[in-house]
Amino acid sequence: MIYLDNSATTPMHPEVIDVMTDVMKKIFGNPSSLHGLGAKAERLVEQARQVTARMLGCTPQEIFFTSGGTEANNLAIKGTLDRIHGRGKHIITTKVEHPSVYEVYEQLKKRGWRVTYLSVDSLGRVNPDEVEKAVDDETVLVSVMHVNNEVGTIQPIGEIGKRLAKYPKVLFHVDAVQSFAKLPLLPARAHIDLLSISAHKIHGPKGIGALYVRKNLSLEPLLVGGGQEKGLRSGTEYVPGIAGLAKAIVLAEQKRTEFLRNSQRWKKAFLERLDGKLSPMIVNGDISPEGCAPYILSLSFPGIKSEVLVHALEEEGIYVSSKSACSSKAEIPSRVLKAMGRTDEEAIGSIRISMGFQTTAEEMERCADVLLRVIPRLQKVMKVHKG
Amino acid sequence: MIYLDNSATTPMHPEVIDVMTDVMKKIFGNPSSLHGLGAKAERLVEQARQVTARMLGCTPQEIFFTSGGTEANNLAIKGTLDRIHGRGKHIITTKVEHPSVYEVYEQLKKRGWRVTYLSVDSLGRVNPDEVEKAVDDETVLVSVMHVNNEVGTIQPIGEIGKRLAKYPKVLFHVDAVQSFAKLPLLPARAHIDLLSISAHKIHGPKGIGALYVRKNLSLEPLLVGGGQEKGLRSGTEYVPGIAGLAKAIVLAEQKRTEFLRNSQRWKKAFLERLDGKLSPMIVNGDISPEGCAPYILSLSFPGIKSEVLVHALEEEGIYVSSKSACSSKAEIPSRVLKAMGRTDEEAIGSIRISMGFQTTAEEMERCADVLLRVIPRLQKVMKVHKG
Repeated sequence: MIYLDNSATTPMHPEVIDVMTDVMKKIFGNPSSLHGLGAKAERLVEQARQVTARMLGCTPQEIFFTSGGTEANNLAIKGTLDRIHGRGKHIITTKVEHPSVYEVYEQLKKRGWRVTYLSVDSLGRVNPDEVEKAVDDETVLVSVMHVNNEVGTIQPIGEIGKRLAKYPKVLFHVDAVQSFAKLPLLPARAHIDLLSISAHKIHGPKGIGALYVRKNLSLEPLLVGGGQEKGLRSGTEYVPGIAGLAKAIVLAEQKRTEFLRNSQRWKKAFLERLDGKLSPMIVNGDISPEGCAPYILSLSFPGIKSEVLVHALEEEGIYVSSKSACSSKAEIPSRVLKAMGRTDEEAIGSIRISMGFQTTAEEMERCADVLLRVIPRLQKVMKVHKG
Repeated sequence: MIYLDNSATTPMHPEVIDVMTDVMKKIFGNPSSLHGLGAKAERLVEQARQVTARMLGCTPQEIFFTSGGTEANNLAIKGTLDRIHGRGKHIITTKVEHPSVYEVYEQLKKRGWRVTYLSVDSLGRVNPDEVEKAVDDETVLVSVMHVNNEVGTIQPIGEIGKRLAKYPKVLFHVDAVQSFAKLPLLPARAHIDLLSISAHKIHGPKGIGALYVRKNLSLEPLLVGGGQEKGLRSGTEYVPGIAGLAKAIVLAEQKRTEFLRNSQRWKKAFLERLDGKLSPMIVNGDISPEGCAPYILSLSFPGIKSEVLVHALEEEGIYVSSKSACSSKAEIPSRVLKAMGRTDEEAIGSIRISMGFQTTAEEMERCADVLLRVIPRLQKVMKVHKG
C-alpha cells in the first residue's frame, strides 16, 4: 500500500500509539479530580501544553486544547465575534479557506455579519495589499490559512500580519492545520492573534487539536460547563489524545527538516518524470519551494473525473484524494480550484497527492509511473464515452 | 489502590484499550476520504452508531457523535434555541444540573432568555407537577438530568416526559451521562427529544460522547465545516474513540445487571456498617433502589472539609471525590447540596463515593472501615482547631 493522502489524515506513528496506550492503561484520572490520580493526569496535560507552546514559540498559557482543527477554527472565529459586540460588523477571509473557516463565515453572514471573501491569483495566493485594502472602520477579524489543504500554496502570513498590525482593532486568525509542526510559523513574530492546529495531520491522534490565543485576548467559549481550559473550553480533557499530540510534536521536531528536504526533492523528481508525457495535465498551485508546502501536490487531468482516477489508483494500491477529504463527497467542482481560475472540467479532474513522514522516494516514483500508465488509458476510455 | 471516583471518570476496560489500539494501528483512514481506507473507517463509525442506537432503542440515524458529554449538552441546548427564533424565549431546567447544562442556561440568561430553575426536594428530586406548572406559552425547552452526578438521585424522567408530551412546542432534553448503559432509559418511550451520553463514564475513552436527536428534529450545528455527522457536527471523526465507545457499550450490556445488583447490595452493607457509629453524618439524596443510582453515594460530615477527607482517604489508598470533579476545584459549597437544603457546613463536608464495573465488595468494606477509623480522628482535630 502506498498512502499519499496525508493531508486528509496521517497514519499514526507507532510511538504515538504506544504513548497513548500507556496513558489509557495507567493515567486514567480526571484532571479536575482533587486526588493524586487527577493531579497525575493534570501534570500530563500541562507537559503537553508546554511541548505545544515550544513548537509555536509561545507560552503554555496561550495554548488551549480542543477536539480538533474544526473546533479550533470555529472557536477562534465565533469566540472572538461573540465578545466584541458593537465594535464592528465586518469580517474578512479568503475564497480558498478550509470549510471549517469558510462555512463559519457563511453561517455568520446569515446572522448579519458583512463578509469580504478575498480573491486569490492563479497560484491560489492572496495579495497582502488586497487584505489591507479590504479593512475598513468596521473590520474586526481577518482569517487566512497558512497552507492551503487542496493545493499546498503558502499564504504570505508574515506580510499580512505586518499590514494588520497597523489596525489594533482587527484580530488576525490563521488556520495552520496543514503546516503545523512542518513549516515554521511563530504567531508572535507574524502578528497572529489566533492560530489553529490539529494532531491527526502530523501522525498524531484524531479528536485533538489546539488553539493558540494571544495573551490578554479574551474569547467567549463555545462549550461551557466544568470550566476546563481556564473556562474557554469545558469538557473532561481527552488526556491520552493530548499526550499523543505532544508525542507527535516531539517526533515532528526531529523529522521535519529532513521531511521538507526530501519531499521537495521528490516532488521535483515526480514532476520531471511526468514532464511532457501526459497531456492535458495542469499542476495546480505554486510549486516553488518558497510558495508551496513541498508535501502537497495537486494535478488536474481535464476530461477525467477525479473519483475515477482515485479509484483507478486505488486498484494499483495507491491512495490519493480527489480534493480535500472534508468536501470530497460533495460532487461539485472544488471551490479552491475555481477561485484559482480553473474551469469546471479542470476542477473536476483534479487529484491531490500528499506526503507524510513515512513517505519514501520509491513510493513517489511508483505513483508517477502508475499515473503514466493509467492516465492515457482513462483518457482513451473517456474519449470513447464522449464519442 | 481502591478507586471509588467512577462518577468523575472510570478506568478504561482493557478490552476497550485493545480495540482502540488496534484501530489506531490498522484503520487510520479519514471516513470522508473517497478511497477504501476511508470507507473502512466509515464502516467502523456506522457500526458504532448501530451499537449506540441499540442501547437507546432508537435508530442509528438519531445518533450524532460529539467530543463528549459537555459538547452533547451544549449542542442539544444551543442547537435547539438557535433554530427556533421567535417561537418563544422561555427555557426551564433544575437547580441541580451538571455545569455543562447549568452554565449553558446561565450563558443564555445573559443573552436575554428567560430561565426557570426548578427547585428540588430534600432528596434532590424535581417534582413533575412543578415542571408542568413552569411551562408557559413562551416555553421552548426543558432540560432535566437523569441521574444526578453528585448524589445519584434519579429524576422522574418518564413522568416528566409524559407531562411535556402534551406541549408539542416544548422540547425535552435529558443529560443521561451518569446513567447511560447502566440504568435503562429509552428516549422514545420517555418522550425525550434530545439525550446526551459520554463514553468515559462507562470504562470507555475520554473525548467521545454522543447526542440522541429525535427523528425529524433539526438543530443548528455548533461546529460547522466539512459537514460530518450529517452536517450537525463537523470535524474529522475520532474513529478509535467511536470504536472504543461501542466496545464499552457492548461490555456494559453484559455487565450492567450484575453491576446494579451488586452495587445496591454493597451500598446497603456499607451504610449498615457505618450505621450509628459516625456522628454527625448525613446521607445525601435518596438511597432507595428506585430513587437513586445504586453506584453513587454521597455523605456529609459537617465540621470536616471535604478536601481534608479526600486527602485522608487517599493516604489510605482510597480515591473518592469531594463533590463532582467538574467543580471540585472551586472552593464553594456544592450548588446541588445547597438546593437540597443542606447548610454550608454540611455541603462543604461532603464526599462522593462512586462505584464502577471493577468495584468489589471488599473495596467497599475497606472504604467503610477506613471511614470508621479516619472520621473520628479528623473530628477530634477539627474540634481542637476550633477550640
